[in-house]
Amino acid sequence: MAVVMGPNQYGKAEVRMVAVDRGGPRHHLRDLTVSTTLRGDFTEAHRTGDNSAVLPTDTQKNTVHAFAQQQPVGEIEDFALRLAHHFVESQPAVREAQVQIEEHAWERVPVGGSGHDHAFHRAGDEKRTAAVTFDGAQAHVLSGLRDLVVLKTTGSEFRGFPRDAYTTLAETDDRVLATAVTARWRHLQPRGDWAKDFAAVRADLLETFATTHSRALQHTLHEMGRIVLDKHSGIAEVRMSLPNKHHFAVDMTPFGMANRNEVFFVSDRPYGLIEGSVTRDDVEAAPEAWYGLPEF
Amino acid sequence: MAVVMGPNQYGKAEVRMVAVDRGGPRHHLRDLTVSTTLRGDFTEAHRTGDNSAVLPTDTQKNTVHAFAQQQPVGEIEDFALRLAHHFVESQPAVREAQVQIEEHAWERVPVGGSGHDHAFHRAGDEKRTAAVTFDGAQAHVLSGLRDLVVLKTTGSEFRGFPRDAYTTLAETDDRVLATAVTARWRHLQPRGDWAKDFAAVRADLLETFATTHSRALQHTLHEMGRIVLDKHSGIAEVRMSLPNKHHFAVDMTPFGMANRNEVFFVSDRPYGLIEGSVTRDDVEAAPEAWYGLPEF
Amino acid sequence: MAVVMGPNQYGKAEVRMVAVDRGGPRHHLRDLTVSTTLRGDFTEAHRTGDNSAVLPTDTQKNTVHAFAQQQPVGEIEDFALRLAHHFVESQPAVREAQVQIEEHAWERVPVGGSGHDHAFHRAGDEKRTAAVTFDGAQAHVLSGLRDLVVLKTTGSEFRGFPRDAYTTLAETDDRVLATAVTARWRHLQPRGDWAKDFAAVRADLLETFATTHSRALQHTLHEMGRIVLDKHSGIAEVRMSLPNKHHFAVDMTPFGMANRNEVFFVSDRPYGLIEGSVTRDDVEAAPEAWYGLPEF
Amino acid sequence: MAVVMGPNQYGKAEVRMVAVDRGGPRHHLRDLTVSTTLRGDFTEAHRTGDNSAVLPTDTQKNTVHAFAQQQPVGEIEDFALRLAHHFVESQPAVREAQVQIEEHAWERVPVGGSGHDHAFHRAGDEKRTAAVTFDGAQAHVLSGLRDLVVLKTTGSEFRGFPRDAYTTLAETDDRVLATAVTARWRHLQPRGDWAKDFAAVRADLLETFATTHSRALQHTLHEMGRIVLDKHSGIAEVRMSLPNKHHFAVDMTPFGMANRNEVFFVSDRPYGLIEGSVTRDDVEAAPEAWYGLPEF
Repeated sequence: MAVVMGPNQYGKAEVRMVAVDRGGPRHHLRDLTVSTTLRGDFTEAHRTGDNSAVLPTDTQKNTVHAFAQQQPVGEIEDFALRLAHHFVESQPAVREAQVQIEEHAWERVPVGGSGHDHAFHRAGDEKRTAAVTFDGAQAHVLSGLRDLVVLKTTGSEFRGFPRDAYTTLAETDDRVLATAVTARWRHLQPRGDWAKDFAAVRADLLETFATTHSRALQHTLHEMGRIVLDKHSGIAEVRMSLPNKHHFAVDMTPFGMANRNEVFFVSDRPYGLIEGSVTRDDVEAAPEAWYGLPEF
Repeated sequence: MAVVMGPNQYGKAEVRMVAVDRGGPRHHLRDLTVSTTLRGDFTEAHRTGDNSAVLPTDTQKNTVHAFAQQQPVGEIEDFALRLAHHFVESQPAVREAQVQIEEHAWERVPVGGSGHDHAFHRAGDEKRTAAVTFDGAQAHVLSGLRDLVVLKTTGSEFRGFPRDAYTTLAETDDRVLATAVTARWRHLQPRGDWAKDFAAVRADLLETFATTHSRALQHTLHEMGRIVLDKHSGIAEVRMSLPNKHHFAVDMTPFGMANRNEVFFVSDRPYGLIEGSVTRDDVEAAPEAWYGLPEF
Repeated sequence: MAVVMGPNQYGKAEVRMVAVDRGGPRHHLRDLTVSTTLRGDFTEAHRTGDNSAVLPTDTQKNTVHAFAQQQPVGEIEDFALRLAHHFVESQPAVREAQVQIEEHAWERVPVGGSGHDHAFHRAGDEKRTAAVTFDGAQAHVLSGLRDLVVLKTTGSEFRGFPRDAYTTLAETDDRVLATAVTARWRHLQPRGDWAKDFAAVRADLLETFATTHSRALQHTLHEMGRIVLDKHSGIAEVRMSLPNKHHFAVDMTPFGMANRNEVFFVSDRPYGLIEGSVTRDDVEAAPEAWYGLPEF
Repeated sequence: MAVVMGPNQYGKAEVRMVAVDRGGPRHHLRDLTVSTTLRGDFTEAHRTGDNSAVLPTDTQKNTVHAFAQQQPVGEIEDFALRLAHHFVESQPAVREAQVQIEEHAWERVPVGGSGHDHAFHRAGDEKRTAAVTFDGAQAHVLSGLRDLVVLKTTGSEFRGFPRDAYTTLAETDDRVLATAVTARWRHLQPRGDWAKDFAAVRADLLETFATTHSRALQHTLHEMGRIVLDKHSGIAEVRMSLPNKHHFAVDMTPFGMANRNEVFFVSDRPYGLIEGSVTRDDVEAAPEAWYGLPEF
């Protein structure tokens, strides 16, 4: 028996960077959290401590900064592509690079009815995401979002499930449904009008959540993905991770009152976790595009 | 020497509750985190374990739920007032009650150009707050907000500060200024048009942050408070806690580039923390209104 | 009416610093989070942006670092005293300084039966704390701890409480009692054998929690404080903040089983929050020692 | 083109449970966070909302509770195996179950020199983990740990790395090395003396971290894994995720002092992230054992 290296990777995680476009009096900003991951043959570094193939993670951070200085950051998918290409094409040991970016949204502070030139407020906790994987030949681009928290006060049921000796849940034809959407969608091509696409897919996800009469969170997940594929021919598949943020109707009978789905206790844990992907049947799967990402 | 009880209080913290108004097809919701605190003579509970004066915290939670069922929650200041009155007026041992509420904002999901009747998405991480203290005779109402994250890309300097043996900071006449505003303002009366007031004060805080040429975060804090007092005769004082979320311009000289305040590294810790209050000189201070709150 | 400054303060929060004593082959380390707060007359900075009195928070951070270099850090109470004295005595505008420190504990990695010379592992999430306030004449020293999580599987009851229309809680003579202790104790003098004292007080708090038959968390709080005052003549008062980390026995009757306080669901929110202080009746209160601290 | 379901799974996440063994006066406790994941053919639930195959996540939570009542929890690997077998063997639609458990450690409160019978304090933030995957035929058992935070004050270098246009990092032959170890190891068999094994592997990981002269965190990772495989013939592979918790020596030259690796600023973000696996060359890989886990 010998001990050998299995899968491995390394990089710089969570480079927090704000890039400001000061080209005119009306400033624009991009607020990003960038993580870089390099894969390749780093066996000697592991076995003997020979670091001659190990581009420092500090250099990876510097590269993120320098690339933001060299030309406008642009859309996060393009910025991730530039970085991934750079690492693979400049470092012999790097076989594949994966770059993950989260973008934090800002809005202009309203002053006198219009947005201020250089003052902003954070638009919320939701993030737009990109994850790009490039192996020297093929680039995969995943766009996405995280922490899009949504809730329906009606139009959601959960019935017809199997019951075993441990089942106490009552069937319901009217419940609150709430989740925090994490979604990623894989583009067929590594180029596109990313910003316009993102806005359209996000609107489709939201609208489908709202208008689907939900028979379960799985059912809603499928509808959301299906609509995106129906309307966006450039998207190959959609993956979602949906925690079921339980809202339990409070029992008011001890207080002599009826609670007709009006007052809910919000539970933090435990939570249902529904994860799934919806895909076209005529495109090839690309597991390498999803490898190493934090979600299902 | 004898051992005696000093200041003490108890209550239920972080009751997470969603109340839905289903009075018509267009639902409305309030998403609240409510904390109750009771003060009074609980010496025997502490000394001998005689709980005859200790209304259970579980009951306090139930009361929050039941009060939301009995009548519409309404504005958080009014809901807090109702709860505070109830505890003081129904429990002989309770000399004073403090009720803190955070409200989480939701927006309607846009569908076909207008907001959906019963589907919502979280509007962000910012919270509207209320803190009410009632001692049986006088009620103090503090309105406020938390986690309003703002940033200016220019219009901020920091100069003219003293230098000692440990000072290395360079003076600057152009820096990024960013903070997460926590603000509370004390009303002269325990009644008002809370929602309208809140919207107006929030707009004033934002607009003043944007339009003030800042000589320091202290300077900005004072201007924000001053404007609120100028424009709202019913407000006695404003307190703010402003973490200075440092954005450091990256040194690009090693890469042969100049960084003209375009690319910034965002630091998490340490951070400057600027806290202060601005008050009218002709109103009495009310330290009891602020007692026990988590911020300065 | 004029607008005037009310209470205000500023400083640097959460300076994360590790200081290593490399005086011999057996290294020692101190891992600290230091926050400094300065109070005084900073009215002009707020009103006009005149910063001539405002020692930068960056300088405060540098001072923390430099003081750790100049001489061994020593006990956190002494390090906080040195910093507080420095700011008050060197800056004319500073009337009072408060320095808060959290110390993160490390243990030596066991190798061959004894602790390694220079390799350590974190001992847990509990922190030892110090909070020193110095106004140029008098120094107050509070020692303390945070996040000491304790639990009893029996020896805790909660009975005899008042019941109102919203009370559903059953009386119990046997429940799980769990809390995360935050405690601070005020010393009569700003000097002492801090490390030895800390170990003794911590042991007293733990032992009293364990051996007290608890009639309520308030009762346990009082006993813990009383014992500390009984055994430590140099301590004037003890304050504690005790969240009641509820453990609810799961109802097993639907599954045909009895749960004799054996299986518990652990709830995150809401939680009871019990806060109180125990003090000697023959010492003067010192509210200024507690001013501005994050807890009750 | 048709839209089809891709990979999907669902379950209950983060069931927080404490189980107490009260069989005698000396109580024992297990404090667990359990997450269950079911995989199988749930296509109809997604496509049409037919839930006849969807065992509710609420039932999964109940099952965790009931199984803890039925017989002693025992070691977390065995508890996970029982749960995974149950779901696969009792639910026709379930092809595979994965059960993840984190165990929170408690120690007895020391009273009079020995541990108390029924009072405990949390031993730290480190968790012992288990992840079991069972597909009806084969069970994979991964044991592990999370949040084991370690630090060396010397015995760590980083040299000989490639330099490009963006490299500014200096080579160093003496730095602080710190990380929070997440490790999982795969057992060749789904049975064993889990507790004894865990203690031994943990000790090996710690001791190897301490005694390895580190040429890079990659080098340390490999040594830690290699030693575990050398000493434990029942373990097939070890995977680790090691964030490089950077400690930067503070530049004291502005203050006229030299910092000989004595005072460090601890940075939160960004951080290097080193991930890798070490495996025997004569065992088959088992990607299905690792599928869906949150780490690399």
